[in-house]
Amino acid sequence: MTSTDQLREIIREAFQKETFPYVPFELYEPIRYTISQGGKRLRPLLVLLGCDLFGGDLNKALSPAIAMEIFHNFTLLHDDIMDQAPIRRGKETVYKKWNPNIAILSGDTMLVLAYDYLSKSDAALLPELFSLFNRTGRQVCEGQQYDMNFESQETVSESDYLEMIRLKTAVLLGCSVQTGAILAHAPREEAEKIYRFGENLGLAFQLQDDLLDSFGDPEKFGKEIGGDILCNKKTFLYIKAFELAGPAELKVLNHYFSSQKHDPQEKIREITAIYWKLNVQEYSNDLISQYFDKALECIGKIDAEHTSKSELKLFANNLLRRDH
Amino acid sequence: MTSTDQLREIIREAFQKETFPYVPFELYEPIRYTISQGGKRLRPLLVLLGCDLFGGDLNKALSPAIAMEIFHNFTLLHDDIMDQAPIRRGKETVYKKWNPNIAILSGDTMLVLAYDYLSKSDAALLPELFSLFNRTGRQVCEGQQYDMNFESQETVSESDYLEMIRLKTAVLLGCSVQTGAILAHAPREEAEKIYRFGENLGLAFQLQDDLLDSFGDPEKFGKEIGGDILCNKKTFLYIKAFELAGPAELKVLNHYFSSQKHDPQEKIREITAIYWKLNVQEYSNDLISQYFDKALECIGKIDAEHTSKSELKLFANNLLRRDH
Repeated sequence: MTSTDQLREIIREAFQKETFPYVPFELYEPIRYTISQGGKRLRPLLVLLGCDLFGGDLNKALSPAIAMEIFHNFTLLHDDIMDQAPIRRGKETVYKKWNPNIAILSGDTMLVLAYDYLSKSDAALLPELFSLFNRTGRQVCEGQQYDMNFESQETVSESDYLEMIRLKTAVLLGCSVQTGAILAHAPREEAEKIYRFGENLGLAFQLQDDLLDSFGDPEKFGKEIGGDILCNKKTFLYIKAFELAGPAELKVLNHYFSSQKHDPQEKIREITAIYWKLNVQEYSNDLISQYFDKALECIGKIDAEHTSKSELKLFANNLLRRDH
Repeated sequence: MTSTDQLREIIREAFQKETFPYVPFELYEPIRYTISQGGKRLRPLLVLLGCDLFGGDLNKALSPAIAMEIFHNFTLLHDDIMDQAPIRRGKETVYKKWNPNIAILSGDTMLVLAYDYLSKSDAALLPELFSLFNRTGRQVCEGQQYDMNFESQETVSESDYLEMIRLKTAVLLGCSVQTGAILAHAPREEAEKIYRFGENLGLAFQLQDDLLDSFGDPEKFGKEIGGDILCNKKTFLYIKAFELAGPAELKVLNHYFSSQKHDPQEKIREITAIYWKLNVQEYSNDLISQYFDKALECIGKIDAEHTSKSELKLFANNLLRRDH
C-alpha cells in the first residue's frame, strides 16, 4: 500500500518527466501551458489509487493515469470556448490567451494524445480499457451537450441536473479508478464496484464545485466567483432556489436570471443573498453527504486489503473538505 | 479478389445499417447529417482495398473502415469552423447550419466514435492499429495547424506546402490502406509499402483537390469554387504563380492577395486569369503525375496477387480522373 501523498509525488514526477513535441509550436505550446498548470491531478490519482487497492504495478499505471489527465484537460479547452470562460486555475484559458481555433485544435490533439497514452497499457487489457474509455468519452460529450441545452431550456429538474453532472464529471472519475483496477487485474465485479465509488464521489465533487463557484474564496478557487450565476447556469443551487422561493424571492430570481443585461457584481450579490436566505447551501451539503456516504459504502463492499481501503476513504474525505 | 465497385457497395450497405444514438439530439443529429451525406467514402474504400489485397476477411475490416470515415468527418467539422467554410458536399456545414459550439462537440464525439469503431478489431491487432492511428491523428492535427499558420505567414515554400498536405491529407489515406493490410495480417514490410502507396496517392489527390477548388465545376465539386483564392490559401497554385510571375502579374497577385477587401467575384476572376496565363495548372498536373507514378511504383513492389494489384491501380487511376 502506498499513501496518497506518495502517489501524488509519483504523479508529479511522472508529469515532470513527460515531454510533449515542440513543432508546430502553435499546436503544442497551449498543451504544455495547460498541462504544466497542474491542478489537483485528481483523475491520475484515482487511477493509481484504483491500481494500488488491488495490488497492481504502479509503474504500469502511469501512462493510463496521464491519459486521464490529458483527456480531462482536452474537455476543459473545448468547454471554455463554449462557456466563454476567461479564467481557469487562476490563469487565462487557452481560447482567451490564444484564440478559439487554437483551443479547438490543441484540444483535438490532446484527445488523440490521451488515447496514445492509454494505448501504452498491457496489450491484453486494451479491449477492456478502450471499451470503458470510449463509453466514458461519449458520455462526457453528452453531459456537456446537456449542460449547454440547459442554458436555453426553461425548466430543468433536479434529476435532469444530476444526470448531466453524472455524465459531464462523475463518469470520468469512475473510469479513472476502474482503469486502475483493470490494470491491477482486479476481478470484473470488483472493478465495477470501484467504478461506482468514483461515480458517487464525482457527483459529490461536482455539487461541491458548484458551491465553491458561488461561495468559494476567489484566491483559492482559481476561477471567477459567481461565474455560474452570471451565465444563468442551472445548477443545483439555482434549481433549489426556485423550488424554495416565496413570491418576493421569485421576483428577484426572475429579474436577474433573465436574458436582460445586469451589472455583473450586482447580479452576483443579489442572487447570492437569495441563496443565503433560502439556505440552499444546506440542501446542497446534504446531497453531497448522501453521495459521499454512497461512495464510502461502495468501498466497504470491495474485496481488498483493509488498510488500502482506509487510505481510499481518507482520500475521499480530504477531497470533500477542499476549498478549491 | 473483390472489385472496387463491389467494395463500394459493401461500404454503402455498412453505413446504411449503422445506427448512431439519438439522445441528446443536438449532439447526434449533426453526426447523422454529416455521415449520411456520403461523399466519396475514399478512406473506408482504402481500408477494404488494403485488406482484400492481402486476402483478409472483409467483414472484419468494416468497423475499422467506418472508423476512418468518421475520423475524416470529425476533421471536416472542426476545419470548417476554423476556415469559416459555409458549404461542403453541396450542403451547409455543421457550424453554419447549427453553430460553432455544436460543431466542436459533435466533432469531439465523432473522434471518440472513430476510436470506438477501431476498437472493434481483433484484440491481438489493437496495439499495432492504435499505434498507427494515434500517430496519424496527431499528424492530421499538425497539418491543419500548418495550414492555419500559412495564412498569416509571409512566405511558404513549395516543400512547406507539400509537407503540410502530406500531414493534413495524405497520411490518413496511408493509414487507411495500411489498416486494411494489418487486418489481413500482412507482413509488416508489405503493410508499410502499401502505406507509401496511400501517402503518395494522397499527395496527388490533394493537389488535384486544390486544382478543382480553383478550376472545378461548382455543380460537381460541392464546395464554392475559388474558396482557396478568397481566403488567400497558400496552395501549390498560389506558390507557383508567385514564382513564375513577371512584374505585371506580381502587381495583380500582390494587389488581390493582400489583407485589403476586394469584391469576391472580381478577385476570383483576376487571380484565375493569372493562373491561366502562367500555366500553373500544367505544373500542378506534372506534380500530380509524379506522385501518382510513385504510388503505382509502391504497388509494383508489393508481394501480392497480380489481379488484386491491378484492381488497386485501376482504383487509383479512376480517382485521379475525377471531377469532384
